[in-house]
Amino acid sequence: MNHLLTLRPDDSQPTPLYLQLARNLEAAIHSGQWKAEQALPSERNLSELLGISRVTARKALEVLFERGLIRRSQGSGTFITPRLEQPLSRLSGFSEMLRLKGFVPGSQWLERTLTPPTHEELIRLGLSPNDKVARLKRLRKADDAVMAIEMSTLPASIIAKPEAVGDSLYEYLDSIGRPVVRALQHIQAINASDEFAALVGIAPGTAMLLMTRVGYLEDNTPIEVTDTYCRNDYYDFVAELRR
Amino acid sequence: MNHLLTLRPDDSQPTPLYLQLARNLEAAIHSGQWKAEQALPSERNLSELLGISRVTARKALEVLFERGLIRRSQGSGTFITPRLEQPLSRLSGFSEMLRLKGFVPGSQWLERTLTPPTHEELIRLGLSPNDKVARLKRLRKADDAVMAIEMSTLPASIIAKPEAVGDSLYEYLDSIGRPVVRALQHIQAINASDEFAALVGIAPGTAMLLMTRVGYLEDNTPIEVTDTYCRNDYYDFVAELRR
Repeated sequence: MNHLLTLRPDDSQPTPLYLQLARNLEAAIHSGQWKAEQALPSERNLSELLGISRVTARKALEVLFERGLIRRSQGSGTFITPRLEQPLSRLSGFSEMLRLKGFVPGSQWLERTLTPPTHEELIRLGLSPNDKVARLKRLRKADDAVMAIEMSTLPASIIAKPEAVGDSLYEYLDSIGRPVVRALQHIQAINASDEFAALVGIAPGTAMLLMTRVGYLEDNTPIEVTDTYCRNDYYDFVAELRR
Repeated sequence: MNHLLTLRPDDSQPTPLYLQLARNLEAAIHSGQWKAEQALPSERNLSELLGISRVTARKALEVLFERGLIRRSQGSGTFITPRLEQPLSRLSGFSEMLRLKGFVPGSQWLERTLTPPTHEELIRLGLSPNDKVARLKRLRKADDAVMAIEMSTLPASIIAKPEAVGDSLYEYLDSIGRPVVRALQHIQAINASDEFAALVGIAPGTAMLLMTRVGYLEDNTPIEVTDTYCRNDYYDFVAELRR
């Protein structure tokens, strides 16, 4: 437990101790110090180990709770919440990111079919009206929490058997030698429809992030149009900007 | 008007003509073919010039209207709407982006004061409790449309006279030799509060994008914390992702 000593607030600093502790705990959570199934130290442990009052420990945990970084489980302690820190420059798999933190990524399929494309899809994927598309609609989960609704459309010439796609679409595309290497993504805020609110467990009208992505092969052929409706509290999209 | 001929839909293509025309018009708008004060060709002009039916021209304009790309002005025609295509990799000024499209960027100041920092700001900007911060709150406008509410906090050691800051904060920082060269930006979706909804002219609860940015000097000192509440229909945040 020695590494916990780095959490100790510094009382020579002007910043209130509970805020220092909250910031140190936040940094430790981001760096992956706790995995999904590991309890954070309790108020009492933090207080004894760091030589601070229980009020300070409680207020620090309260800050993390309000920011949605931790959840409390009756009787068994405090745990990190699933939270996808998604850099907006890297095409990083959902599954990969969650596994790093010890969550079990999962999908619940709502649809895996071959259907005619909409006009919009026809244009975006450069198809002919007689072509078909694989339509993949699913809930994306971390353990039991529904994090997002994802709807992907790919040409049937790429995915002829939609039911063969497993938890990771990108791993599947890799396995058939058609990796998506680049994507353009647009970000919008939308109010959750009744249907989507029910699917992800939030109140209708709650603001969600809608990511619309077009994925390209190495030769610049667009093969994927994906709309992802993300629960705002589970996603943390980050961009680094330079002049 | 010869460049308009490139808008002509191709009737050997299977895609409906109005969708082709809509896509061509959209590309032309994105490439800057029309500036803020220039009317787009009318239904009749499009129809005569391109040899298509007026219904096709009307349906194409309808698609652009529904996507928020154009607005109609009683009696004087169809104009592009202010729309900020903001790449999520470059720190590009609001003013600069809008001027390129012929809009007049503007700010309406709501607050320019020196006040004590909040605890949060104190931590993020690495200040002492006795330090003060410049607090800049304003509406960001394109012509008369309110696009966003922006709230910036900078150490008073950088901005001693908040009222000296003009329309562009970054130009001001450049002029005093303290340019922000890098920033980290987090993106969230939020429901507009009553106050913010009234300020930007949308219904309370409408989903907005909240960008939270920390800006750094060349030597990595954080000198700026900015929260920007963006009208979703006026902003188009785009990221290019690679594996």
